[in-house]
Amino acid sequence: MLAKGVVCACLAGAALAPARTPSDLSAYREPLERILREGLRTCTAHELLLDLCRTAPHRLSGSSGAADAVKWAKQALERAGLENVRLEPCSVPFWERGSTAELALAGADGSVSAASERLAIAALGPSVPTPVEGLTAEVVEVHDFEELRALGDSARGKIVFFNRSMDASLADTFEAYGKAVDQRWGGAREAAKAGGIAAIVRSMTTRLDDLPHTGSMGYEEGVPKVPAVAISTHGAERLAARLKKAPVRARLRLDCRQHEDQPSFNVVGELPGSELASEVLVVGGHLDAWDLAEGATDDGAGCAQSIEAVRLIKALGLKPKRTLRVVLFMNEENGLRGAKAYAESHKDELEQHVLAMESDRGGFTPRGFESDASPEGLELLRAAAELLSPIGIGFVRPGSGGADVGPLGRAGVPTIGYVPDCQRYFDIHHCERDTVAQVSPRELELGAISMAGMLYVVADVPERLPRAAASK
Amino acid sequence: MLAKGVVCACLAGAALAPARTPSDLSAYREPLERILREGLRTCTAHELLLDLCRTAPHRLSGSSGAADAVKWAKQALERAGLENVRLEPCSVPFWERGSTAELALAGADGSVSAASERLAIAALGPSVPTPVEGLTAEVVEVHDFEELRALGDSARGKIVFFNRSMDASLADTFEAYGKAVDQRWGGAREAAKAGGIAAIVRSMTTRLDDLPHTGSMGYEEGVPKVPAVAISTHGAERLAARLKKAPVRARLRLDCRQHEDQPSFNVVGELPGSELASEVLVVGGHLDAWDLAEGATDDGAGCAQSIEAVRLIKALGLKPKRTLRVVLFMNEENGLRGAKAYAESHKDELEQHVLAMESDRGGFTPRGFESDASPEGLELLRAAAELLSPIGIGFVRPGSGGADVGPLGRAGVPTIGYVPDCQRYFDIHHCERDTVAQVSPRELELGAISMAGMLYVVADVPERLPRAAASK
Repeated sequence: MLAKGVVCACLAGAALAPARTPSDLSAYREPLERILREGLRTCTAHELLLDLCRTAPHRLSGSSGAADAVKWAKQALERAGLENVRLEPCSVPFWERGSTAELALAGADGSVSAASERLAIAALGPSVPTPVEGLTAEVVEVHDFEELRALGDSARGKIVFFNRSMDASLADTFEAYGKAVDQRWGGAREAAKAGGIAAIVRSMTTRLDDLPHTGSMGYEEGVPKVPAVAISTHGAERLAARLKKAPVRARLRLDCRQHEDQPSFNVVGELPGSELASEVLVVGGHLDAWDLAEGATDDGAGCAQSIEAVRLIKALGLKPKRTLRVVLFMNEENGLRGAKAYAESHKDELEQHVLAMESDRGGFTPRGFESDASPEGLELLRAAAELLSPIGIGFVRPGSGGADVGPLGRAGVPTIGYVPDCQRYFDIHHCERDTVAQVSPRELELGAISMAGMLYVVADVPERLPRAAASK
Repeated sequence: MLAKGVVCACLAGAALAPARTPSDLSAYREPLERILREGLRTCTAHELLLDLCRTAPHRLSGSSGAADAVKWAKQALERAGLENVRLEPCSVPFWERGSTAELALAGADGSVSAASERLAIAALGPSVPTPVEGLTAEVVEVHDFEELRALGDSARGKIVFFNRSMDASLADTFEAYGKAVDQRWGGAREAAKAGGIAAIVRSMTTRLDDLPHTGSMGYEEGVPKVPAVAISTHGAERLAARLKKAPVRARLRLDCRQHEDQPSFNVVGELPGSELASEVLVVGGHLDAWDLAEGATDDGAGCAQSIEAVRLIKALGLKPKRTLRVVLFMNEENGLRGAKAYAESHKDELEQHVLAMESDRGGFTPRGFESDASPEGLELLRAAAELLSPIGIGFVRPGSGGADVGPLGRAGVPTIGYVPDCQRYFDIHHCERDTVAQVSPRELELGAISMAGMLYVVADVPERLPRAAASK
């Protein structure tokens, strides 16, 4: 997930309401038990994920891999037996990493040679490149924007190194991420404002290792665009240790490129409602992924779970009253263009959108849900979640459904995000480790089952989930 | 863990009591928060686990690796700052796997050659070996003991293949294990009673792969001892497919060996209580491990967590009233000799044992605890667990503390087992996959933190935890 904003909530969240099940939901125990058994018996979400990551391992927006992912998604929705399978157009940015990302530390004489120490980095997207010969300058270390501003003119002409760690002592890793990621998103902008010529940002992980974690950053109109890279946490420690001893000159070389926007697509398929087909529940993840690995956790998992959740309901012959619509969004990572295009092109239909669910926090074991529904809406969602407590769903807490359903939420559609356990997420996020090998088939499937259970209840109960307040 | 018996409980267990914190425990919020922060900041449990698995990767009871593990444990307890660090003797069985474990399927002419198909197997402990030339016989497939008995004489002289899967559709993998593991424990015995000459048992995992999962089995006095092996789940599927087409002859070769019992040790260390030092809380895991990998999950994790839990309390300067005693048990996997020796040699002190805690379900993310405490005892444990809900502890359910604390429980000491998430456990259990790479540092540490929090409260509250009923 993109999650450049602050995400802050306690790990466990508000507990489910004291044990009680409204009598009107007790009829859902049996179908939810069937969803659970069928899901765990077949574990199809993992097959879907393997297939996506084999077919389109690299699928950053605009790339040929992203086009492959769109084709794959259409076929996967058709194979799952969904109807009205279609591509809905959106225009996306197309940034390429290139083949060079080098940070070389100069020796005692200030020059860089073949023997110079190299530290592991990766360009942030959409960083501008350096000149072919690279940028060579002194490195200045800071820990936040305030410290940088306090340097006044002394950052001028330098490479600014943002080295504030994610706070590992927080139990909620997303909270720790939210408190550190401003460096990644805004580091290049702030470096440029201070007269710096490039930004190096400590990777967003609590783990100490050699893998740079990429991610999105932003430029600001009127502020020079300077190159921006992530450095591995070990690399950051190493660079900081060198800086403690003496000034460090470094050469940064990047050959990434920004191309023209490209045509692309959200991929959509439906299980039409049996009685109230015009009322729609959206469920989705994002098809695009950062390009350093397979994007299995971010967000192949959410795509596989969204398809699997609706497939399970259909395969069991369950016929919810309202329509379930899988939307596999394009370009969550660096633009949200798919999410915006969906909300825009369906704007006349949003009054009829009952709920929008997103899975973009990984395929880990279930913990709960997070939702911006009204208090009355939360009550219904919590009653449904109680039915899922045997598989580890423990809360529906107030919060955001996620980035891709955000535009729908702002239009008044209640949104809900699936919240799996968060401990391993930032070990994997946006780095080489994001492969299928990191995903447990059973944990992934239990997520799909949790989503299917919640969707089925909300799509089928007589009372419609209350609308949220628009334009939050 | 050994877990040959039936373990059956719903995944989530009884929820914590409706939100309320007895006022007398609210003073523990602050120290538990400090334990959490310090634990997550340092993540020392993972360092301990790495060190154990590097020092003594193979440590089945009686082996030189087990002796290395004992030495390691003594040093680790000393380094953690514990007092009264000591080795407490026990005598353990010593079984060695040997170097040959081969299952070759005969060709159409009934003979085995270099070209014959081999299926991945591992001896169960303490299986007897085959003759050097192997045992060659027809294979007969059954799914339970009843089906075997119904065969009457037609299993005579054959290799009996127990091929009942773990039920993947159960959310609680330990429940699925409990319903299948009778084949492993009793397969050889039942095969011999039916006149069979060996037993092949489908591996105890829901995953379909090529890794045999070893484990313990038992012989019965007066029943011939026949060799027993685990076959990988893929291998089991393959063998079953061959048997569907035509009779299958197979040759089994094993050169495992049972030696004389060996002297060994439980390793013990203490943080003496500040006011009620004679009242003791035990916390432990088992030092021995099956020999196919590093035993990182089973049960290096529990050892590391037990040490880390008490180290955290001490490092923060907390001084609980009662004594915390780490006991790293020897020989859980194939004999429980350490557990029995501890209960026997401390029998005069067991009245003063307040609680015995075990961690032997892996180093996964926290879910809860399981305890045989009295209803009043459970009330206190649940109130303490509520303080741990921010890190994902959701229940204290009635049940067993674990195998190593079992003899203490039968003597009336309340026992409690740490219950992490169970979805990945049987992917790893007793097979080559049980390495440190499968353990998340943060998940492991959160287990240690959960244990430390629970221990600290029970060791420090004014009221002593009520005793359980003896001789259950």
